[in-house]
Amino acid sequence: MEDKILDSIIKRVEDEPYRKKFGMELVELEYGYSKVKMTFKEDMENIFGMAHGGAIFSLIDEAFETASNSHGTVAVALSMNITFIKPPSRGDVLFAEAKETSVSRRIGTYDITVKNDVGDLIATCQALVYRKKDKLPFL
Amino acid sequence: MEDKILDSIIKRVEDEPYRKKFGMELVELEYGYSKVKMTFKEDMENIFGMAHGGAIFSLIDEAFETASNSHGTVAVALSMNITFIKPPSRGDVLFAEAKETSVSRRIGTYDITVKNDVGDLIATCQALVYRKKDKLPFL
Amino acid sequence: MEDKILDSIIKRVEDEPYRKKFGMELVELEYGYSKVKMTFKEDMENIFGMAHGGAIFSLIDEAFETASNSHGTVAVALSMNITFIKPPSRGDVLFAEAKETSVSRRIGTYDITVKNDVGDLIATCQALVYRKKDKLPFL
Amino acid sequence: MEDKILDSIIKRVEDEPYRKKFGMELVELEYGYSKVKMTFKEDMENIFGMAHGGAIFSLIDEAFETASNSHGTVAVALSMNITFIKPPSRGDVLFAEAKETSVSRRIGTYDITVKNDVGDLIATCQALVYRKKDKLPFL
Repeated sequence: MEDKILDSIIKRVEDEPYRKKFGMELVELEYGYSKVKMTFKEDMENIFGMAHGGAIFSLIDEAFETASNSHGTVAVALSMNITFIKPPSRGDVLFAEAKETSVSRRIGTYDITVKNDVGDLIATCQALVYRKKDKLPFL
Repeated sequence: MEDKILDSIIKRVEDEPYRKKFGMELVELEYGYSKVKMTFKEDMENIFGMAHGGAIFSLIDEAFETASNSHGTVAVALSMNITFIKPPSRGDVLFAEAKETSVSRRIGTYDITVKNDVGDLIATCQALVYRKKDKLPFL
Repeated sequence: MEDKILDSIIKRVEDEPYRKKFGMELVELEYGYSKVKMTFKEDMENIFGMAHGGAIFSLIDEAFETASNSHGTVAVALSMNITFIKPPSRGDVLFAEAKETSVSRRIGTYDITVKNDVGDLIATCQALVYRKKDKLPFL
Repeated sequence: MEDKILDSIIKRVEDEPYRKKFGMELVELEYGYSKVKMTFKEDMENIFGMAHGGAIFSLIDEAFETASNSHGTVAVALSMNITFIKPPSRGDVLFAEAKETSVSRRIGTYDITVKNDVGDLIATCQALVYRKKDKLPFL
């Protein structure tokens, strides 16, 4: 059963310290695809009382991490280019979706978008991983 | 006295919810320049027990936010391109330095680097703001 | 008739020196959308006899330029993030498609992809313009 | 003599079709460093009579290509993030300088800047290569 990989990631994410810090939830995970949910809460505010860029990026990176490791070998983030489109409102439920745009032996590329629960586009991201030969250590 | 702007930002950052969430410290702030410090702690770990990309980005974004707002008018982040060079070790004290590379009437550009306390390069970032006419609301 | 804008751009592109230099063709132009065609020829080769990154980027930028100026006011490119997926083969006919992902009063964002004529993804790009108030000077 | 690598690249660049297309000159080449010169000419103009983004990027990419291949093994461009700071004037002599910011077994990262001959910053770029094991084929 190949789904052992996805199951292992789901379980591992459950215990991930950074995920807990933000109250993020892994909503969906497929090979090369992931969807993660997070509510924009008060402790994520910046000096203007808006969502800190770091919070939005963290949500993006969680989707990216899970999607890019879904093939069962370790994926190392190389670069990420984030564009901020529209600031979310306090209390907004945000969803990041990571989709694989290409995958070769050593490199994987991903498009990640963040939307709120009425579908407004909040941010987009283009990201790149280096794919190691090593299997995920927690399989 | 123009330093009123920098003083206001420093005070505001002191109370910033997101800064507190990460235990970040604004070490230095000048016009177009900022240095922020953060210790890589357990609650910042990803599924591999390494620093989550979101944590490193958050540190970068804090330096970017403070440097780009240092001229006293509101700067809105448009895009950020982060390259991950070397993962930090648990307990590492990390420093992000944001330097303005250009500033025009409406656009500001910044280079941000993250290093650990022995000077290893952890990540680099190229970032862009839109500069509004509005004064910082908390001046 | 609003199509005067698109017609003016199409005519202007016809005379554009850089377009001619590469033998690019504007295949389709709508508000916030553009498709440009280019054949990868010998004079676009790099030191490995492959397509120079500059040639692929030039095609992307042509689609970006035309799509972002299609609203009739001057759009100034701020930043572009290109990811190279797969090198084209000599003689490949390449198509760049630029799609607007968001447009506000002052900022527009675009996703641009390059494919060859059998649909292989060659490169992707995320790009940003500053939208001036000025009408296109050649309208 | 290790300079055989640099000499081979210099010679190969001399014959590079794309370099000739733009009249670029490789001014300096060291391990992990390159400087390339180009004059902004009429055939590089866009629909506004300004320098086409593709021309500026081409100059950047030429410096990036030569710097990243200077270690003697094949470097494949993965991603490049360009920020446009100031448009050059017709006739401007432009210089792109590529500096290696990090190099590991498989990945190299570079900062590239473009300046005109009075030192104005025209554009900056952050770029990434995948380093193959293969030696340069023309050594």
